[in-house]
Amino acid sequence: MLSFENDYCCGAHPAILERLAAANATQFPGYGSDEVCESAKARIREACGAPDADVWFLVGGTQTNQTVIDAVTPAYAGVVAADTGHVNVHEAGAIEATGHKVLTLPHHDGKIDPAELDRYCATFYADGNYEHMVFPGTVYVSHPTEYGTLYTLDELTALREVCDRYGMPLFLDGARLGYGLTAPGTDVTLRDIARLTDVFYIGGTKVGALFGEAVVFTHGNAPRHFLTLIKRHGALLAKGWLLGLQFDTLFDGGLYLDIARHANDAAARIRDVLRERGYTLTMDTPTNQIFITMDNDVAARLQEHVRLGFMEKADDTHTVMRICTSWSTTDEQVDELIALL
Amino acid sequence: MLSFENDYCCGAHPAILERLAAANATQFPGYGSDEVCESAKARIREACGAPDADVWFLVGGTQTNQTVIDAVTPAYAGVVAADTGHVNVHEAGAIEATGHKVLTLPHHDGKIDPAELDRYCATFYADGNYEHMVFPGTVYVSHPTEYGTLYTLDELTALREVCDRYGMPLFLDGARLGYGLTAPGTDVTLRDIARLTDVFYIGGTKVGALFGEAVVFTHGNAPRHFLTLIKRHGALLAKGWLLGLQFDTLFDGGLYLDIARHANDAAARIRDVLRERGYTLTMDTPTNQIFITMDNDVAARLQEHVRLGFMEKADDTHTVMRICTSWSTTDEQVDELIALL
Amino acid sequence: MLSFENDYCCGAHPAILERLAAANATQFPGYGSDEVCESAKARIREACGAPDADVWFLVGGTQTNQTVIDAVTPAYAGVVAADTGHVNVHEAGAIEATGHKVLTLPHHDGKIDPAELDRYCATFYADGNYEHMVFPGTVYVSHPTEYGTLYTLDELTALREVCDRYGMPLFLDGARLGYGLTAPGTDVTLRDIARLTDVFYIGGTKVGALFGEAVVFTHGNAPRHFLTLIKRHGALLAKGWLLGLQFDTLFDGGLYLDIARHANDAAARIRDVLRERGYTLTMDTPTNQIFITMDNDVAARLQEHVRLGFMEKADDTHTVMRICTSWSTTDEQVDELIALL
Amino acid sequence: MLSFENDYCCGAHPAILERLAAANATQFPGYGSDEVCESAKARIREACGAPDADVWFLVGGTQTNQTVIDAVTPAYAGVVAADTGHVNVHEAGAIEATGHKVLTLPHHDGKIDPAELDRYCATFYADGNYEHMVFPGTVYVSHPTEYGTLYTLDELTALREVCDRYGMPLFLDGARLGYGLTAPGTDVTLRDIARLTDVFYIGGTKVGALFGEAVVFTHGNAPRHFLTLIKRHGALLAKGWLLGLQFDTLFDGGLYLDIARHANDAAARIRDVLRERGYTLTMDTPTNQIFITMDNDVAARLQEHVRLGFMEKADDTHTVMRICTSWSTTDEQVDELIALL
Repeated sequence: MLSFENDYCCGAHPAILERLAAANATQFPGYGSDEVCESAKARIREACGAPDADVWFLVGGTQTNQTVIDAVTPAYAGVVAADTGHVNVHEAGAIEATGHKVLTLPHHDGKIDPAELDRYCATFYADGNYEHMVFPGTVYVSHPTEYGTLYTLDELTALREVCDRYGMPLFLDGARLGYGLTAPGTDVTLRDIARLTDVFYIGGTKVGALFGEAVVFTHGNAPRHFLTLIKRHGALLAKGWLLGLQFDTLFDGGLYLDIARHANDAAARIRDVLRERGYTLTMDTPTNQIFITMDNDVAARLQEHVRLGFMEKADDTHTVMRICTSWSTTDEQVDELIALL
Repeated sequence: MLSFENDYCCGAHPAILERLAAANATQFPGYGSDEVCESAKARIREACGAPDADVWFLVGGTQTNQTVIDAVTPAYAGVVAADTGHVNVHEAGAIEATGHKVLTLPHHDGKIDPAELDRYCATFYADGNYEHMVFPGTVYVSHPTEYGTLYTLDELTALREVCDRYGMPLFLDGARLGYGLTAPGTDVTLRDIARLTDVFYIGGTKVGALFGEAVVFTHGNAPRHFLTLIKRHGALLAKGWLLGLQFDTLFDGGLYLDIARHANDAAARIRDVLRERGYTLTMDTPTNQIFITMDNDVAARLQEHVRLGFMEKADDTHTVMRICTSWSTTDEQVDELIALL
Repeated sequence: MLSFENDYCCGAHPAILERLAAANATQFPGYGSDEVCESAKARIREACGAPDADVWFLVGGTQTNQTVIDAVTPAYAGVVAADTGHVNVHEAGAIEATGHKVLTLPHHDGKIDPAELDRYCATFYADGNYEHMVFPGTVYVSHPTEYGTLYTLDELTALREVCDRYGMPLFLDGARLGYGLTAPGTDVTLRDIARLTDVFYIGGTKVGALFGEAVVFTHGNAPRHFLTLIKRHGALLAKGWLLGLQFDTLFDGGLYLDIARHANDAAARIRDVLRERGYTLTMDTPTNQIFITMDNDVAARLQEHVRLGFMEKADDTHTVMRICTSWSTTDEQVDELIALL
Repeated sequence: MLSFENDYCCGAHPAILERLAAANATQFPGYGSDEVCESAKARIREACGAPDADVWFLVGGTQTNQTVIDAVTPAYAGVVAADTGHVNVHEAGAIEATGHKVLTLPHHDGKIDPAELDRYCATFYADGNYEHMVFPGTVYVSHPTEYGTLYTLDELTALREVCDRYGMPLFLDGARLGYGLTAPGTDVTLRDIARLTDVFYIGGTKVGALFGEAVVFTHGNAPRHFLTLIKRHGALLAKGWLLGLQFDTLFDGGLYLDIARHANDAAARIRDVLRERGYTLTMDTPTNQIFITMDNDVAARLQEHVRLGFMEKADDTHTVMRICTSWSTTDEQVDELIALL
């Protein structure tokens, strides 16, 4: 059955599989201490314009959020996130499992507001009992957000300023980073992110890899013995070169962005048709995810022919559904979907 | 300086100190395995009408919340609490330190609403992705709440029903339980609480003891090897008989309730004067805490002569202050405060 | 350079890569809820002769040990392991990170002794202070062990009896299970393991897969909401079908055992030559790992031409080195190594 | 029945109870932010000759070990202790509950050997795989040890040097510190300990207080927001002045040392008689604990008349028993015991 359910339903971009087949019999040292990983790291540092960055490869998104947040957040502090943030809602308590509270701010189309963050911190430190409370520590944002929306350069800059004011690291979850970097109208580049955050990651799983997330500590600021911390979280891959090989391929000649652009274009085509045909877009998103508020009937009928993502009930008669494109979305699949709409 | 800042500023009711002095040279076995503890447990079981209850003594409130919640909540679940709940706001992340998320419901005068809890659970299990989320586990309420308000018997019964529906233990934080049991107009007794909850505690620290909280697993349902779990939390007192001795005194002839009634009466006298003189009570509370929304000027002036509790800024020109009475509040202190108002 | 450093230096058995390439564009549901995973689970249940077994797929060994031990061990208990056990020495504290102590027994060629385990438990419960100590909970063994040695059927049966006596789950780490099952002289089958343990895993990473470990709860005894627990550990792979596909291939027609037998045979050839030429085998092992106690000079000279595993210093002039074979070891590589010895 | 079971069977030195009674109605600010705590801290700083020390008060020993070790040990590291150390054996896994492994060295009469610690660290860092292992972090010693023995000044100095060499904080558990400081023949003073360790604590529970341990960060090196960390462990006492009051009394005019000397003297009298009468002292200890290896029969007979501490079975016919004195041991009790021996 046709599926637009998510961006991780298929395997890897063919270029990755080819390279994997070619390297399959090579004897690599373990745990990422190989030349392919070194090459991938060098390419990423260059793409980021961050020659001092420390780059590490992990397997999945929740694992990466858990490992990084635990490593950079003091024991007396929590992580500040949008109430809709992945770390707050969809990670089965992985952050709390490491002993840290998720402190929430109201989201605005999935984003947190720098002024509200500032006010939150000011109120916290003005409270005479603040030492009995969880300190605002790491600030977590995702770009694109859970709703496919994007921060502007002004917003990221303002968040950076608040983080500096209160001594908080800024951590950007880029599980779908490629789709954000190639979205029409965005003014945020990879270099901006490397300049404005303390740590972020470049998502592979949802952008054309089999799996893998590249964590970038932007200014040589990896936590001490980070390899040991990764291992302690059960997150160190024995055949680490598998991760290096995928990112080395994705960052060789712009493949990462090409993949993302392809998916964004497919989503744009679908979005145009939805608008023409009078569908209600739940929010205006420029990336590879489309959210539609549908009559329950319409949703049910459509899903006889195509798998869509279920987001939430809007009310008793309406549902928010998600259409998601990826590296593997073909023109034919898009045509087929459009015919169904 | 005169103080109505909190209900734990003074030592213990004199009856406790006398008994402590008398027992001081007795050689007790360690860690609560003594006869005084046994006697106190028997008295508490009787007061609760719960002959099968398991009773344990811990030192403080946060410690008790942390130890109990960690012991009764599965790893895949969190604890549901009011957003204003002590475990959510004022325990420095002690719950998350044990790996559990605090899941919040909006408070209504400090309380959670049974219907909202029911809806929360229904929505949770209706979500196709619920296995990726933190399950609602233990339900946490406090009685009196952070705001000195009380659940009705109907409300507690309704909470019990929702807990049964979704297989969740109901845990009642009774750090100030005495003040609730003796509040004018309440229809909730100690026996009701022992019947309707799975586990609760009888607060000593804030009700006339030097320290100590008596945890009651209401129907022989203490977690396996609970003593070991207490020790693992660093919460096992070597001279455990100190805890037994205090509760044995408090539950000998109704002293616990007498202490609470005394403090409630003092608060009622103050509350009447406040109403007469046109002060704005932030909310209507029947226990030993009074919350007043004051002009910042008035608050500042008062605090030159009496220590009050600061709760929060109401707006730019108003502050919520707390007046709190205890076992040690004297008629003279009340008169003095009234003269200042 | 030639390498006999470990059994995870190369990619996957070609049959796996071929199948991956064929399935790459298929749209699978996420997180292991796909048909390939179902097929792999069915094959594993059948191979185990355990129709009621719950099978789950994780990515790596440390992750699997951490997730399983945390899930099956009560908070008041630890995991009992050989002092040389992987969980005790080489997992960067991943077990303790979940709050559990590793309780150690002396190893005998990497194994624990059932009689010593029995005595340990008897002594524990005979101690009047045992409630102040960490209870022996889960019993952890690996098969093959860190030293490539194997339990006999009698030993496993005896361990099972001790576990039953003290109510402890028996967990077998099978990161290299294939090599054990196909070792000459072993009397332990996969069905024995499924019958005698509560939970074990079938290692993929070190036995011909790119990555992946198949956890088998042998009698329908998976912990409640185990998927959520996996996610909470950051261990849930988005493209879970990648794991299912690899195990479905490995358990289709006996490939898993063929791979292991191939590596064992290569190791046997090398071992024979070592013996002929007077090398000192550190211990007698029948699987794919060979441990040699070498003059430091000899070790240094060899390593100019071939990468070996360093195990430990034996004394000031001798070193224990490891030779390790795998699915990818060729006859030519073995010849080349033999020429160097 | 007569008891020499432990040093925490009775209440507090009468001077403490008197002062408590006198202060009982005073209104103190909460959580240790009061003047009595300040006074006690000043006295302790002066006794330590450490004007920059940060002093904190906690309730019990396991709690203190847990809170301090968790605060000063990095996530990638464990705490090194004697295999007989309290943190390794008798704290129900409280250290591991915070995510840290206890790394053990063999004990020598309860002590660790500086040269062995050095070798342990050297071997650790010489291992090519050390990043996959738990780093030696905090070094934990107790003084007196579990067996009542004492470090010499040379030994403590040597431990300090090893700690400096490998960047490890040195933490001294002084649950029975008084008995060590006043032992005949010791060359270690409180000032030495304050100079040579990074953090240590002065035990109150076992040296004449109702409860309480005074943690001394010897050179202004308390972890950031340590009050919040204490609260997060559920270890912050509401009526913190109770702790300050006890230590202020103990450190007013040398009472702390007087109490300890009294108990040591009583133990010395008993020890002399034991030697005269041919009992086998398990080891030679100069403090308030006496360990005797007894015929099981003798042990059983004695215990009909006096409660002793059970330590361990020596062999099938012998048991190690403990005689323990304290502030409350009277001459009459000693005479009575001697009559029984």
